[in-house]
Amino acid sequence: MSFFNRDVISITDFNRNNFEELFDLTEKLLDKKVSNLDILEGKIMASAFFEPSTRTRLSFETAMKRLGGDVITLVGEEAVSIKKGESFIDTVRMLDSYSDIIVIRHSYEGAAKLAAEIANSPVINGGDGKQHHPTQAFIDLFTVKRLKGSIDGLIYGVLGDLKYARTANSFLLALTRFNPKKIYLISPSILKVRSETRDYLVKSGITFEEYTDITEIIDELDVLYVTRIQKERFPDPVEYEKVRGSYRVTTSILKNAKPDLKILHPLPKLDEIDPKLDETKYAAYFKQAYYGVPVRMALLLLIFGVKPDL
Amino acid sequence: MSFFNRDVISITDFNRNNFEELFDLTEKLLDKKVSNLDILEGKIMASAFFEPSTRTRLSFETAMKRLGGDVITLVGEEAVSIKKGESFIDTVRMLDSYSDIIVIRHSYEGAAKLAAEIANSPVINGGDGKQHHPTQAFIDLFTVKRLKGSIDGLIYGVLGDLKYARTANSFLLALTRFNPKKIYLISPSILKVRSETRDYLVKSGITFEEYTDITEIIDELDVLYVTRIQKERFPDPVEYEKVRGSYRVTTSILKNAKPDLKILHPLPKLDEIDPKLDETKYAAYFKQAYYGVPVRMALLLLIFGVKPDL
Amino acid sequence: MSFFNRDVISITDFNRNNFEELFDLTEKLLDKKVSNLDILEGKIMASAFFEPSTRTRLSFETAMKRLGGDVITLVGEEAVSIKKGESFIDTVRMLDSYSDIIVIRHSYEGAAKLAAEIANSPVINGGDGKQHHPTQAFIDLFTVKRLKGSIDGLIYGVLGDLKYARTANSFLLALTRFNPKKIYLISPSILKVRSETRDYLVKSGITFEEYTDITEIIDELDVLYVTRIQKERFPDPVEYEKVRGSYRVTTSILKNAKPDLKILHPLPKLDEIDPKLDETKYAAYFKQAYYGVPVRMALLLLIFGVKPDL
Repeated sequence: MSFFNRDVISITDFNRNNFEELFDLTEKLLDKKVSNLDILEGKIMASAFFEPSTRTRLSFETAMKRLGGDVITLVGEEAVSIKKGESFIDTVRMLDSYSDIIVIRHSYEGAAKLAAEIANSPVINGGDGKQHHPTQAFIDLFTVKRLKGSIDGLIYGVLGDLKYARTANSFLLALTRFNPKKIYLISPSILKVRSETRDYLVKSGITFEEYTDITEIIDELDVLYVTRIQKERFPDPVEYEKVRGSYRVTTSILKNAKPDLKILHPLPKLDEIDPKLDETKYAAYFKQAYYGVPVRMALLLLIFGVKPDL
Repeated sequence: MSFFNRDVISITDFNRNNFEELFDLTEKLLDKKVSNLDILEGKIMASAFFEPSTRTRLSFETAMKRLGGDVITLVGEEAVSIKKGESFIDTVRMLDSYSDIIVIRHSYEGAAKLAAEIANSPVINGGDGKQHHPTQAFIDLFTVKRLKGSIDGLIYGVLGDLKYARTANSFLLALTRFNPKKIYLISPSILKVRSETRDYLVKSGITFEEYTDITEIIDELDVLYVTRIQKERFPDPVEYEKVRGSYRVTTSILKNAKPDLKILHPLPKLDEIDPKLDETKYAAYFKQAYYGVPVRMALLLLIFGVKPDL
Repeated sequence: MSFFNRDVISITDFNRNNFEELFDLTEKLLDKKVSNLDILEGKIMASAFFEPSTRTRLSFETAMKRLGGDVITLVGEEAVSIKKGESFIDTVRMLDSYSDIIVIRHSYEGAAKLAAEIANSPVINGGDGKQHHPTQAFIDLFTVKRLKGSIDGLIYGVLGDLKYARTANSFLLALTRFNPKKIYLISPSILKVRSETRDYLVKSGITFEEYTDITEIIDELDVLYVTRIQKERFPDPVEYEKVRGSYRVTTSILKNAKPDLKILHPLPKLDEIDPKLDETKYAAYFKQAYYGVPVRMALLLLIFGVKPDL
């Protein structure tokens, strides 16, 4: 199944061929420095963020506008007042009436899936609760491919909140489409990877191990994916204070790292990565953010079934 | 008087010829599936919503963008802080300096009219307090014409808050430009149609009757227009609880309805229509919402005096 | 140094030639009534207003859109939540990844300068705390030139809060690039012009005098620049009440004014100018607001290095 006219709800809806088709087109856009195509003129994206997100929203809007399309935006107070008022179903029907594609973020799990069942236009999940963030996973794996040459055969560490962070979970599910050599899951014990994701890794034949201390395996990693740990997840603030230091990536933690280790982070980051690392060769997260627009441009082109003349 | 360069403040500013010109162009846009015209390139709409409204705002913005124009948006917090600060007149002058057309929603009655007196650019009233909502009435009557073939000769029911709902009042005023066979006004007694509207119906020679119970006349209706009843309108919450059931449209209320009855609602709806009806042949409100964009596209084309090559 | 690819942080970064180049292009856009150029197609402006400002934001967005470019907007709640969360530096990196030019307003002084150091794309300061508002100063001086024929040789009064108002300070700094005959600085004694600005005037050889009472010199003025005086600046509200009357421009204050005096105000105005003056020949502030778009269009064209065929 190609991307044409398709919803993007969970990363598990896509196979390796889909990833490769998307990444090939993204590479072309990057290599030919295409920042401006008049190819989606008159097409409207509804950008509906019931939960705020500047990064995902602005990069989708930029992608659509760089392709010549336009955007209607529902965000902030208005989105909140809708949440309190009319049914979500009616809101989706409205957005579907007006637009050719819908990007939706919502704090409820399954919101994007429900929207996709209602809408005729394709629906892209821009994050639903703690569940999925498929386009972030496309960007994450594209970044690995671009910087490491291949996604296969590498040793990955995924650090932080593996229970609630949708980005980390979508990243792990995405890796099952490839052949990672090994994945280390590093988290405080109360934030261990959730069972659906663990089961999916097992079922997919992925080799993985769970750790609580990154220093034990840092020397093995080719890629380190970091997510935030939120204090609110800990019933006891004292527990949080105990572990927080171990989940902050610093120069000292990296002293045994491979020289070509790449650190990814979906951003925004707070203090989980020492800003001193921002300018080092390890930091891949700003490049990763930069790839957000071309990956989303490629995705829109494939969903609209429009082939640019590159 | 044609639409060219004209303000749209009250539906009573327009005659039957205006309605027909607008509806003919809308039909053409729909029949030729025109979703994209490059005809208003470089034109700017100021979309100024001092009172939130996603539906009216987003459909106007979509219409403008589908015609190749662009939009500057003033909404939410910013609009509120303006309300508290500089004079409304200065704000309108600003919007007028920047844009080629202004769409304005405001909680004060007469706000759009005042704006039109100040601005050189045409001003479209997107709703002013409880008073007018002319473009909604254009959409409502277009929906009747499209689904019933004609606006004349039909029996209409208008149900709900007929005192404060600007949509219901603009719908009634719009009907005076046509020859409805009869209009039933159905509301709780404290929300009976306001006197200006009643007087206008009388003056226009419209046959109408007032009821409090829809079941008495449901079998006669060709079109039922429903609006929300707000609890806050009732001085005593007990009074509200007494009547609310009678103003909720359900399968049981419809059991004596004509098979080709069409139910309209300006949306958003809360619980005044049983969602079970959404998928029935009676429900015309999602089509009505869908017509919001093409009717507004046609309106913009006529005001800008641009004839598309259809 | 030309404007090409350049940041616009402080008005003192620009010399007389820059002003003249900008003003010449603006004159051309106005004289040829250019409201629509397809010349920046595919270019994206990030419009990031961490402090609300409808006038600056909407006129920049209008300018960009009239040139065929497009805009991504970060404003209101979202901007505020960013302020509380990720580092300003990371936010700027994000905006820089997505866009070709960044317009930024922030309540912290130096925010735009910091952004310019981080971003590869040009950064335009849309106001940073009490410090600078360079594009407003371009508009102000363009207005003088357009309405008086020349900026040189005139007598200027600058009235109001000269300590904290960034607009008044940027206006004064801008005047140092020309040869004003004299500048009268008129303010309550606790809001006298700040020392950096006074020093800069001295260093630039500008003739100026400080007054607390405008009536003493009103008859000499060719241009009167008015800014708001905020009650919050006065430690004692009684002090504020004492002076406020003297800083409100009224017909009576103007009775000895030159017939061709022009009053400027960066807007929004509250009650510092009697609205009765709005329709008089003195009032230049609505024209000044109107020039906001063409001056900013010219600025964008020069920064992007795109020469329109005029």
